Amino acid sequence: MKSDKLGVCVIGAGRAGLIHAVNFAGRVKNARLTAIAEPNRVTAEQACRELELDRHYPDYRQALEDDAVDAMVVVTPTAYHKDIVVAAADAGKHILCEKPMAMSVAECDAMIAAAEKNDVVLQIGFMRRFDQSFVYAKEQIKQGAIGDVVLVKSLTRGPSIPQRWQYDIAKSNGPLAEVNSHDIDTLRWFTESEFEQVYAIAGNYRCPEARQEFPDFYDNVVMVATFVNGMQGSIDGAVSVRYGYDARLEVVGTEGVLFVGRLDQSGVVVCNLSSGLKTPAVESWRNRFTEAYRHEDQGFVDAVLNGTPSAVSGHDGKMAVKVVNAGNQSIMEKKPIRLNEDEISLIG
Amino acid sequence: MKSDKLGVCVIGAGRAGLIHAVNFAGRVKNARLTAIAEPNRVTAEQACRELELDRHYPDYRQALEDDAVDAMVVVTPTAYHKDIVVAAADAGKHILCEKPMAMSVAECDAMIAAAEKNDVVLQIGFMRRFDQSFVYAKEQIKQGAIGDVVLVKSLTRGPSIPQRWQYDIAKSNGPLAEVNSHDIDTLRWFTESEFEQVYAIAGNYRCPEARQEFPDFYDNVVMVATFVNGMQGSIDGAVSVRYGYDARLEVVGTEGVLFVGRLDQSGVVVCNLSSGLKTPAVESWRNRFTEAYRHEDQGFVDAVLNGTPSAVSGHDGKMAVKVVNAGNQSIMEKKPIRLNEDEISLIG
Amino acid sequence: MKSDKLGVCVIGAGRAGLIHAVNFAGRVKNARLTAIAEPNRVTAEQACRELELDRHYPDYRQALEDDAVDAMVVVTPTAYHKDIVVAAADAGKHILCEKPMAMSVAECDAMIAAAEKNDVVLQIGFMRRFDQSFVYAKEQIKQGAIGDVVLVKSLTRGPSIPQRWQYDIAKSNGPLAEVNSHDIDTLRWFTESEFEQVYAIAGNYRCPEARQEFPDFYDNVVMVATFVNGMQGSIDGAVSVRYGYDARLEVVGTEGVLFVGRLDQSGVVVCNLSSGLKTPAVESWRNRFTEAYRHEDQGFVDAVLNGTPSAVSGHDGKMAVKVVNAGNQSIMEKKPIRLNEDEISLIG
Amino acid sequence: MKSDKLGVCVIGAGRAGLIHAVNFAGRVKNARLTAIAEPNRVTAEQACRELELDRHYPDYRQALEDDAVDAMVVVTPTAYHKDIVVAAADAGKHILCEKPMAMSVAECDAMIAAAEKNDVVLQIGFMRRFDQSFVYAKEQIKQGAIGDVVLVKSLTRGPSIPQRWQYDIAKSNGPLAEVNSHDIDTLRWFTESEFEQVYAIAGNYRCPEARQEFPDFYDNVVMVATFVNGMQGSIDGAVSVRYGYDARLEVVGTEGVLFVGRLDQSGVVVCNLSSGLKTPAVESWRNRFTEAYRHEDQGFVDAVLNGTPSAVSGHDGKMAVKVVNAGNQSIMEKKPIRLNEDEISLIG
Repeated sequence: MKSDKLGVCVIGAGRAGLIHAVNFAGRVKNARLTAIAEPNRVTAEQACRELELDRHYPDYRQALEDDAVDAMVVVTPTAYHKDIVVAAADAGKHILCEKPMAMSVAECDAMIAAAEKNDVVLQIGFMRRFDQSFVYAKEQIKQGAIGDVVLVKSLTRGPSIPQRWQYDIAKSNGPLAEVNSHDIDTLRWFTESEFEQVYAIAGNYRCPEARQEFPDFYDNVVMVATFVNGMQGSIDGAVSVRYGYDARLEVVGTEGVLFVGRLDQSGVVVCNLSSGLKTPAVESWRNRFTEAYRHEDQGFVDAVLNGTPSAVSGHDGKMAVKVVNAGNQSIMEKKPIRLNEDEISLIG
Repeated sequence: MKSDKLGVCVIGAGRAGLIHAVNFAGRVKNARLTAIAEPNRVTAEQACRELELDRHYPDYRQALEDDAVDAMVVVTPTAYHKDIVVAAADAGKHILCEKPMAMSVAECDAMIAAAEKNDVVLQIGFMRRFDQSFVYAKEQIKQGAIGDVVLVKSLTRGPSIPQRWQYDIAKSNGPLAEVNSHDIDTLRWFTESEFEQVYAIAGNYRCPEARQEFPDFYDNVVMVATFVNGMQGSIDGAVSVRYGYDARLEVVGTEGVLFVGRLDQSGVVVCNLSSGLKTPAVESWRNRFTEAYRHEDQGFVDAVLNGTPSAVSGHDGKMAVKVVNAGNQSIMEKKPIRLNEDEISLIG
Repeated sequence: MKSDKLGVCVIGAGRAGLIHAVNFAGRVKNARLTAIAEPNRVTAEQACRELELDRHYPDYRQALEDDAVDAMVVVTPTAYHKDIVVAAADAGKHILCEKPMAMSVAECDAMIAAAEKNDVVLQIGFMRRFDQSFVYAKEQIKQGAIGDVVLVKSLTRGPSIPQRWQYDIAKSNGPLAEVNSHDIDTLRWFTESEFEQVYAIAGNYRCPEARQEFPDFYDNVVMVATFVNGMQGSIDGAVSVRYGYDARLEVVGTEGVLFVGRLDQSGVVVCNLSSGLKTPAVESWRNRFTEAYRHEDQGFVDAVLNGTPSAVSGHDGKMAVKVVNAGNQSIMEKKPIRLNEDEISLIG
Repeated sequence: MKSDKLGVCVIGAGRAGLIHAVNFAGRVKNARLTAIAEPNRVTAEQACRELELDRHYPDYRQALEDDAVDAMVVVTPTAYHKDIVVAAADAGKHILCEKPMAMSVAECDAMIAAAEKNDVVLQIGFMRRFDQSFVYAKEQIKQGAIGDVVLVKSLTRGPSIPQRWQYDIAKSNGPLAEVNSHDIDTLRWFTESEFEQVYAIAGNYRCPEARQEFPDFYDNVVMVATFVNGMQGSIDGAVSVRYGYDARLEVVGTEGVLFVGRLDQSGVVVCNLSSGLKTPAVESWRNRFTEAYRHEDQGFVDAVLNGTPSAVSGHDGKMAVKVVNAGNQSIMEKKPIRLNEDEISLIG
């Protein structure tokens, strides 16, 4: 490293990118924000002002040549992840790559191989693994609070209205990828096993504007799964919901049950005759997971500086992609899909 | 008794009277509703239809002569309690008397003396002593869940708009009597001690129609108290609140804290963009304490039939009246009032 | 009728039977408990004492000949429902039959036909339709609180340890029948449609004692469903859970979300250093649905006396049986099951 | 300013001091942490490591001479506040002073005069004014959600065991100052008025070790107050509670009620047979108000840089001190204390 702090370049300065950038600019120890890479000039300049930063690159490849950049945070549309991550690895940069990791298992394999070949850290952005409430829940289960895990239910419903490219499932892999990647990873984390078979149903209920051109698009999905170790899982997801950001986990055990997450946000409740008791819902994943992102970014820096493995590996990212694809196949074929056992046997 | 069941006459067939009457008509074991006494003919006839009952007396004194009546439940305005209870006791009837017990300590003394002389049960209607959540809370504290009790906070706020006679504090003893008698009894129950000194502030915030004619009337009151055993208490009360029926208890101990009561009623929560999370408030004490009234009525029957002391004695009723009067005096004189120690020494 | 009140005989005086019996004995208007039928003499005599009742029949067929019996409440094991209901109908008795209605669609058809032929009321015991919180939720949705319904999620998990005969899925139809019949009915109620396709997974996690002899037995089940009108549904169920009785509903709409049910029971929360915040869970369906049973029983009496259709018809009972059987088939065959469209077309 | 960012020196590098220091070191815009002043060398060096900072002064007077220091954050024991603030003002430094502002009204007057004379910003550390939930609550009330304010109830109970000097009320002004200053300020904020009369009771329930030497020490206090505009207030406070950090606000209005604050922390609930439903309590004010401190620090920087008045003025600090002293007097004299009207008339 050029300095005693890890120099970080964030690639993609949209809303999610800014969260990481703000963290590296002052909230993460032993790191500093060195630059951003963002093709849109207006976005880039606004981000620099916001971040009190003076260096931005229109093309991420320029950042690859910047010696002050030790690590890259990839926050671009999914379709670009593979190329950027492989190039970054080849340039010797450590990588924190947002979810979903890539479009296909093959892309994931290429990314993992590149990181291994170049001996750089590759961490995938499942920040719930760093959220205090999820971590506490996992600890409680490890301590036996609910006996053995039987069923893991995870849901994520978000208010975001899809961008046009997201209506095309072939380009976005759909809400299962964009939204429920987190839930898929959470199920793997809490079952400590791999998906064995999935069955999913989906439909477009809230986005009539997409119905004609994108008949495969869905904005509501339910998926049920069995795991290799015999446990059960279920996921539901939605986009364009009009009530807030809703991310909750429920784990049923042989001896109890555990809940993570609340829909209410502020701790302020008003009660009057016309409304009854009323409290605001969580508005956005940005409010809900602010601190989780910070811990995730810190965890990445620590893994790089300490030479320890990242908490969320390329393999974790790849397995989620695989489940997304199986879920989408189940939706299309209206039948359960069994996941390829060969690859699962590679887990251990 | 004329039958193997306790024959009960309810005196006063208004809303509170009907709750008791419905209980004795079919929800309480070893008792039956024999008659009601109600001077208003329309009210009486409607109640009889509702209760599938054929006997009502316009004057409670007629009921005193009815041999089928073993016990009386007194649910009239407070001002009549003393005369009715004394007459009932002299007629050998057991008595469940609604709160507040009477207007003054002297009246309470007369009622207690009459019951003792005639060897009948006199129970006062503090039904919270029979509410499952209050009972469970008391047990938890006895088991040491919060250490020693330090501070007992109890509040009751109700939606009822006072009737005209209630604006006159001289006639009604005000909301401290009508509403907060329950809280006063709860503080005695949870401190297991007697009020030593009280200080109260009060004002009329919601009833402008009463301001000119009844300048002493208050619809919001806060009272703080010390107890003989050194514990602390606080009460707040209100009438004409426009948001529901609110009765909550909070007990602070040396090792923890305990909460009783919720403002939300139905367990149904709706969330949408315009309202956020929304759930109805408890509407009325009738919804909140339905089962407590049933257990209270059963407890009264059991005490009579088993010859055991009632769970809420005349002494309990009298001490609440005493505190009400001290609280009202504090409001008028704007200073703390010390309760008469002679009488307190009689407690044990 | 022999009297101006509907004479009711409860068949089966176990715990569920007693709930109905207590209601008809004093909590339901225009009805009276006339007798019980119960083959076990000890159980019968104990129930009679409890109910202050003097008439019990060891055989339900004796009750059929009792002119004082206008209506029968059938609370026996499911396998006997068909014979009893058909006999009761043929004897001109009105019938409230507990869920699940029967073991097969064919049995349901016979029961419905018998009731129609004899012009008696046949109501099925889905008491959640009478629970105030479910009813309020349904009203909220009708008023547009969450837009159009997208997904209905319902779960029931209970603490009961199955009796030996219940381990045999062929005899009991399993937890989908015994526990989740309620959820199936709730999904039909809230989608206002019929199940189109179901997929279910199940396993035995908590009952090792049954594994060898009853390999098909499951104590945890997840089912996902599509409906004829395009909506989605999911159900999960469990028996032998060791944390309480858990019945919750979540309805996702195009404009919002709605929740019914809480796991906490008493409204009492204790907080201390060793436990954090702590509150008891709902113990049993008997605590949770006490009032729903009373409203159900009243609704049955009203339907009989007013000559109006029952709120939960034989058709509702039959459709639930059909879905149970499809769910069990899906578990066995590990694939989605499409429900017979011919019968569904009969709905309207 | 020496730089385009406000240079900040934090005086006192204990736990509360570190919260401010971390904020200025990277979480507050347009500011930078320049130095800390801390007499304890070990504490100072540890803080510098934690903050990646190279400059610390053993004596705050040295910081006064540092031109890189534009502003000072005073986080020392209360007894030193007056001298430090006056010296800082005289040195032309802007000041953010932690609560309680000082020991007496006279000290506050001296501090306010010094800030005015030197034209520097003086802000007092009532960070609840910057907490999102309190701010949202205030907005809701302004929008009429509960009608006119009637009663403001605020409580703070903390787990901290007092340090020895705090047992001496003459040195610490007691928990009313150390803990309930926040509540006093909240009542002024939500009533938009001044305290008129206070009555307080207090006792030592949890600190037997202090009873003999410090008979005036109290660890539990309840205070009730009337306001100049006729509204009502109540406060309760405690130290050494063993269940968590508890800060809640309840505002009763003519048309409704509003609640701020929760005792549960993590959003994780575990339920099993032995515990029932269980969730951790808030551990510390540091967890609860982390973001409020950041917003407070940002607000201070903004006020300095924009030349706008601080959101919490020296007058606000002084009025809280005045109420603390009146409360302590009420406890000692066991009677209500009327606040000096002359000073109150200066408010407007």
